Amino acid sequence: MFRWKNVHGAVGASALAALLLSACGPQAGEGDQTDAALRPPGNGNGSGSVAELMAARNLSEDDVRAALATYTPSGGRDEYLIFASGGHSGQIIVIGVPSMRILKVIAVFTPEPWQGYGYGDETDALLASGARDGQPLGWADTHHPALSETAGDYDGQFLFIGDKANARVAVVNLKDFTTQQIVVNPLIQSDHGAAFVTPNTEYVIETSQYPAPLDGAFAPIEEYDEKYRGAVTFWKFDRAAGRIVPEGSFAIELPPYMQDLADAGKLASDGFVFINSFNTERAWGGVLEGNPPLESGASQNDMDYLHVIDWRKAEALVAAGKTETVAGMPLLRLTTAAAEGVLHFVPEPKSPHGVDVTPDGKDIVVGGKLDTHGTVYSIEKVKKLIADKNYAGTDPYGVPILPFEEAIRGQVEIGLGPLHTVFDDKGYAYTSVFLESVVAKWSLADLKVVQKLPSHYNVGHITAAEGDTVSPDGHYVVAMNKWALDRFNDVGPLLPQNFQLIDSSGDEMRLLYDLPIPIGEPHYAQMIKADKVTPIEIYTPVGTNALTHAVDPNAVTGGKEQIERREDGVHVHMTAVRSHFTPDIVRVKQGEKIHFHITNVEQAKDATHGFAVGSYNLNASIEPGEHVNMTMIATRPGVFPLYCTEFCSALHLEMAGYLLVEPK
Amino acid sequence: MFRWKNVHGAVGASALAALLLSACGPQAGEGDQTDAALRPPGNGNGSGSVAELMAARNLSEDDVRAALATYTPSGGRDEYLIFASGGHSGQIIVIGVPSMRILKVIAVFTPEPWQGYGYGDETDALLASGARDGQPLGWADTHHPALSETAGDYDGQFLFIGDKANARVAVVNLKDFTTQQIVVNPLIQSDHGAAFVTPNTEYVIETSQYPAPLDGAFAPIEEYDEKYRGAVTFWKFDRAAGRIVPEGSFAIELPPYMQDLADAGKLASDGFVFINSFNTERAWGGVLEGNPPLESGASQNDMDYLHVIDWRKAEALVAAGKTETVAGMPLLRLTTAAAEGVLHFVPEPKSPHGVDVTPDGKDIVVGGKLDTHGTVYSIEKVKKLIADKNYAGTDPYGVPILPFEEAIRGQVEIGLGPLHTVFDDKGYAYTSVFLESVVAKWSLADLKVVQKLPSHYNVGHITAAEGDTVSPDGHYVVAMNKWALDRFNDVGPLLPQNFQLIDSSGDEMRLLYDLPIPIGEPHYAQMIKADKVTPIEIYTPVGTNALTHAVDPNAVTGGKEQIERREDGVHVHMTAVRSHFTPDIVRVKQGEKIHFHITNVEQAKDATHGFAVGSYNLNASIEPGEHVNMTMIATRPGVFPLYCTEFCSALHLEMAGYLLVEPK
Repeated sequence: MFRWKNVHGAVGASALAALLLSACGPQAGEGDQTDAALRPPGNGNGSGSVAELMAARNLSEDDVRAALATYTPSGGRDEYLIFASGGHSGQIIVIGVPSMRILKVIAVFTPEPWQGYGYGDETDALLASGARDGQPLGWADTHHPALSETAGDYDGQFLFIGDKANARVAVVNLKDFTTQQIVVNPLIQSDHGAAFVTPNTEYVIETSQYPAPLDGAFAPIEEYDEKYRGAVTFWKFDRAAGRIVPEGSFAIELPPYMQDLADAGKLASDGFVFINSFNTERAWGGVLEGNPPLESGASQNDMDYLHVIDWRKAEALVAAGKTETVAGMPLLRLTTAAAEGVLHFVPEPKSPHGVDVTPDGKDIVVGGKLDTHGTVYSIEKVKKLIADKNYAGTDPYGVPILPFEEAIRGQVEIGLGPLHTVFDDKGYAYTSVFLESVVAKWSLADLKVVQKLPSHYNVGHITAAEGDTVSPDGHYVVAMNKWALDRFNDVGPLLPQNFQLIDSSGDEMRLLYDLPIPIGEPHYAQMIKADKVTPIEIYTPVGTNALTHAVDPNAVTGGKEQIERREDGVHVHMTAVRSHFTPDIVRVKQGEKIHFHITNVEQAKDATHGFAVGSYNLNASIEPGEHVNMTMIATRPGVFPLYCTEFCSALHLEMAGYLLVEPK
Repeated sequence: MFRWKNVHGAVGASALAALLLSACGPQAGEGDQTDAALRPPGNGNGSGSVAELMAARNLSEDDVRAALATYTPSGGRDEYLIFASGGHSGQIIVIGVPSMRILKVIAVFTPEPWQGYGYGDETDALLASGARDGQPLGWADTHHPALSETAGDYDGQFLFIGDKANARVAVVNLKDFTTQQIVVNPLIQSDHGAAFVTPNTEYVIETSQYPAPLDGAFAPIEEYDEKYRGAVTFWKFDRAAGRIVPEGSFAIELPPYMQDLADAGKLASDGFVFINSFNTERAWGGVLEGNPPLESGASQNDMDYLHVIDWRKAEALVAAGKTETVAGMPLLRLTTAAAEGVLHFVPEPKSPHGVDVTPDGKDIVVGGKLDTHGTVYSIEKVKKLIADKNYAGTDPYGVPILPFEEAIRGQVEIGLGPLHTVFDDKGYAYTSVFLESVVAKWSLADLKVVQKLPSHYNVGHITAAEGDTVSPDGHYVVAMNKWALDRFNDVGPLLPQNFQLIDSSGDEMRLLYDLPIPIGEPHYAQMIKADKVTPIEIYTPVGTNALTHAVDPNAVTGGKEQIERREDGVHVHMTAVRSHFTPDIVRVKQGEKIHFHITNVEQAKDATHGFAVGSYNLNASIEPGEHVNMTMIATRPGVFPLYCTEFCSALHLEMAGYLLVEPK
């Protein structure tokens, strides 16, 4: 392989800087990179040769290579898009690779005024639909984004993400990068293994984390073993409608272990879902009450249980009416699941974290956060053990346990605290190793580590180009580090996270870039080839509602603007175009309800208009061709400016008017 | 000057790529950059020489230089920090220069769950204090950030920002990058010239944009000339307390023109504030009522008025009791301000936008968005005209108008739509030119343009390293482009903005980097030398409240944790440490009020813990040493997991417990 080191090997240790300078510039023939005469003025930035810039900015040869591998010139496009969860920001972060620039923050569970998300009738209603038991929720703890798949490959159409704090799943349409739906899981109180999809996005998988009574009722913690349960929900996805539909969705009851991550089988393991678990000890803390804290109570057993679920069999049982309806959800009871061969356990080393199916679907890799191994299960062996009913026993809830040694293909000695694993196209796996702070590259064929690349602290998840598909691209890996200690300029006690882009195309991994993540803690991310995502540029036809993707019944066309009084209030039919609203003066009486119907009649890409009414908390972002509806009650009299909040034209500041509220 | 072009001049047009490869690598002696044998495998990323990387990624020589001027290796620090407004996200964005990485989003006016901002007693109260007339406001339209200054230089201590939509100003403490205060301006309904500071941060300046009655009352738009007014408020800043104080704050009434941007004088112009205006026509739209839209109504006059305000004189008049109290604010009436020599006008060309004082304070540069000139006023001339009472007339409100030709030092022919101007250390000014989409560099001495650098579309504001101080650094300029059309990968109809980093250290400006801004529309930004900002790394002593910067009365120390029932509810005195909360089980009865008092007892940098209670919208971010208080009412019975939302340790998932709400 042709490599950097080889090219320059003949000149030994001489720095690239010196080499370039001495060879390439007539004026530099007698200089070296430390010669002041050859330095540009000031601190050396902005002009000068590679050598000078290296010297001025203290860049190594590796830095130069990394810079050139990531720098994307003005107007250049990124090759991949990362969709990363935004942690408890409740949003999704979109990042270009290799430039590592944040291109968008998709508003999902949290109001985002810049996007007008949560500030108009439709998005208000969308966020309200995410309330739990009448409790409005202004945030979420987004964990695992999942791109929709066709035949096990990302298809670039939809994106799903789970809310750990409130057990919800959202659907994002990648046609316009907007959230379309939020579903609340009535069975469970928190999730973690969400969202993951089956290979054709038949289902979106959401697995509980912290057990609780499945009917939402209270039960004393002392009745944990009897009344607390986990569950995995299979949300049916209707691709044509772009929505999760209750019809056909179902759940399977699980024991009160703490189910953790999940992954769907594919190819050789198609039809299965794998979920790992910790706390098979069924500890629940109670540290002030004389119990050990959960962190030690849940870490007693040497083995926990990998859950192996045959979802096609479950689907058939659901169709056959073998469910109970609990909290409104068809639920396959644990006893049924165990008896009917839907659910099997395989022991997995102490408190595992990640479970990841290999691209060919043949193996399932489990990381043990208190173990030093990656454990590789063979679906062929697992299937045979199931077929042969070759059990090592049953758990306290009657679930058959497959024998560990006979279910695995082997273990790879990785290091302290292996968590998550992703894959490339050359037969290698990449595992984040939390305690050791490295990314370990290892061979799937012979289960041997070939390289460890130091990462930053608290490396958690890891993602790879097309890494969760049946055909990973093998070019890039990103280590998602939770800490940024000492890595960037200080910005107060709350630090960003740190995404480290790694070039995984060659024999050896190379660190390319550290990206601070300034909003939320991204738990997981998926990376898709950018050309698979083909969003619309404007809304057509003019008057399209972004939630229905159809022309809004209240869409306004130029010339038809009016202010109309109806029984239900004042309807303002308004257009926005550079650089005015029509109408621009709205006169109402105190107490009147106002319905703003605003169409941005522009069809030029990027010609977004904002619409704000001061002091009334009214704010919209109206993309070209988009129509929005907003309702307010003019409770307070006065003179309230309204204006466009996007710098749309030279006369943008003049794109303004007044809401005049006359006192009663 | 030693420059890139000169170094390679001797080899004419030969590409750097070919040059490096042919000269620098023995194995490459016979190859060129297009030789397939010399290419790395795959798409060429990640290994290979400079030449190969250039070829593989289609980088020009300028691209290489830009990459090396901006790429900041893992662990490297940025030289400058940009504080950019977040537009209608309501927040502030912190960006490192030259790496152009977003390091933080400071939550200011909008709840931000990742930071727990708006999710605890203190920040709830802070956001509630920003309500207008009882109307809670969930967002803002942040426009102009202003760093605190000492003797006209940024001192790195505080940051202020205005909310255009709701006429508010916020104070951010750069000790911990947190918002400390939101003040509501009761006089005005919108602002634009906010925030700007006087040279020792005596005052934070907030100027109205869209006129309205100053007492907050209703008045028909037809009484615009008589009853609508603008105003400039001087918010007194108490540096020791880190707060704006009403005592000593005052305002000056202004005519119902639309006041636009502002800048404080310094050195030669110390004691003055300059505010420009448009719509001296006093148009107010009414396009459905037979009037022209504001954009044309406000663009009739050839000249509008630069407002020249002697704030020290105003201060003296306020002290002398020459104010009226309107809407609770001491207000210097327009007639008084005009009669007492506090307020003068100077004509400025048609609908200006930016007004910027030169570093030496001698000149004031105004950009005319419908003009092709930058107009340079001389403070010496202005002062003399004022002293001589050399007036060209008075405006309809009795404000004396100084003669234009005698007030200016000259005009510079810039191009179509000059907006904002910043300065370097070598006597040059840099003006954003909206319609022409360029940054124009021009000489202050001879008022001649020396270079125009193409920028992206809708360039608005522009910022420079230490650019608003008495001693700009002259290294970097950033063009803040509102559109990103065709510049990055498509992410749906709502596009990011685009910050273009320009190297301004040499004779010629050079474009270095395009940074998409994915949250909000940054209107203005200031750039400070990074080593001037020295934030704390953790909160000390343990138990510090981030809003008071003192130990919270409810701070909890290890061993003193307890659950206590008082008349006002259940007080949970809790500590957080890797990897458990104490207590972790909280048992209450339905309907009880719960007061969580949580201290993160860690003192390790970056050891932040989150605290969430599912389904109850409860969420905190507790930095090392920080204490937070949160209140909830347990309205609904059930079993609600509580857990740490920051990936703090290998056993982070075990940092959990339950809120158990027993039914009544």
